[in-house]
Amino acid sequence: MYKVVFMRHGESIWNKENKFTGWTDVDLSDVGKIEAVNAGLKLKENKFMFDIAYTSVLKRAIKTLWKLLDVMDLTWIPIIKNWKLNERHYGNLQGMNKKETEIKYGKEQVKIWRRSYETIPIKLKEENYKYLKDDIKYKEIPDISLPLAESLKDTVSRVVPYWNEEIVKQIKNNKKVIIVAHGNSLRALVKYIDSISDSDIVNVNIPTAIPVVYEFDDKMSVLNRYYL
Amino acid sequence: MYKVVFMRHGESIWNKENKFTGWTDVDLSDVGKIEAVNAGLKLKENKFMFDIAYTSVLKRAIKTLWKLLDVMDLTWIPIIKNWKLNERHYGNLQGMNKKETEIKYGKEQVKIWRRSYETIPIKLKEENYKYLKDDIKYKEIPDISLPLAESLKDTVSRVVPYWNEEIVKQIKNNKKVIIVAHGNSLRALVKYIDSISDSDIVNVNIPTAIPVVYEFDDKMSVLNRYYL
Repeated sequence: MYKVVFMRHGESIWNKENKFTGWTDVDLSDVGKIEAVNAGLKLKENKFMFDIAYTSVLKRAIKTLWKLLDVMDLTWIPIIKNWKLNERHYGNLQGMNKKETEIKYGKEQVKIWRRSYETIPIKLKEENYKYLKDDIKYKEIPDISLPLAESLKDTVSRVVPYWNEEIVKQIKNNKKVIIVAHGNSLRALVKYIDSISDSDIVNVNIPTAIPVVYEFDDKMSVLNRYYL
Repeated sequence: MYKVVFMRHGESIWNKENKFTGWTDVDLSDVGKIEAVNAGLKLKENKFMFDIAYTSVLKRAIKTLWKLLDVMDLTWIPIIKNWKLNERHYGNLQGMNKKETEIKYGKEQVKIWRRSYETIPIKLKEENYKYLKDDIKYKEIPDISLPLAESLKDTVSRVVPYWNEEIVKQIKNNKKVIIVAHGNSLRALVKYIDSISDSDIVNVNIPTAIPVVYEFDDKMSVLNRYYL
């Protein structure tokens, strides 16, 4: 049996300010930092150990992982950071307050943008796309792969191959893995792993900084899942 | 021209308590944390950028690097941690106060243990060696490679091949590299890079958390070196 831990980063400054974040690289809030430490303590109490960790290239996830590993005395394990675990790209909604967006576009439209499977939010404006292309974090990614905005389906199509080709290999190699990522990159992953339908995924929400433990059999079928 | 930055970790709790540390995995002191942040600020002010970072598997080095990268907004770059960049193993001196050791063994003997090139300090006692073998950090290292105590010469013989085979490859691939390591693993490296004699290395000391910039030509000969 394989055991894998997934976790969403701690509260970020923009979670707190109720803004669409996506690929905007905002830091953890003070609450988020405490959440990360608490998650580490909980994992430690429950005798979890990890051989390798995966995260995105966004600092709210990386720093959550760092704090968690520090508490567990596991700072020394390899950490693989990959943009494929980034949050869903929210296009031009990034930086907008969620309440104000509801006033401007209507509650129903915002719910569709946030939770539906195939809808792509308003794409990034030219000047913002340039900003993304100039970001050194993404300089080795071909233009064609850089999103202007993603539906959850688009996020699935980058997260799931990364899971299957990279992470599952480590799990099957008996490495104990933790993945610290984002609300929607984890929804994308969980949709695939738990075979959740396109309509049911609308109601799935991942809380910040609560470790979720998945247990798999040797064919990677889910045996059990629980929040710590 | 290649530019590489080396840095010793910030002050650790045992630096402060004036104890031999070696492979003991002690944390940064509060001063050490501030030093790490300041080093990051200095590098940022001077417009340094890194593509990849190397460090040991000891938390005082890892956490110095994390703090430095956070200040530079470079948390997302790959970090390679390897025990070959660990501090010199101080054998059974680890945990002993330097002043008390001088009283017990004489000032001259302690100076030889600390600074001479070929002398190996008192080897690790059986019970401590078991402790090292049980440390999960080192579980994939063959017993024969696990030191009971190292002379600086022993440290050179693990650090220099790692430099040549792993780090230089990245440098020649035009990656901008930073290495955050330890007083003696850096003395070992600098001895090799600067062709310092076995007797002259006695007088070389590396201060905590001050970035040293080395400039190399395309054959990796040193063109210039300076502290930031």
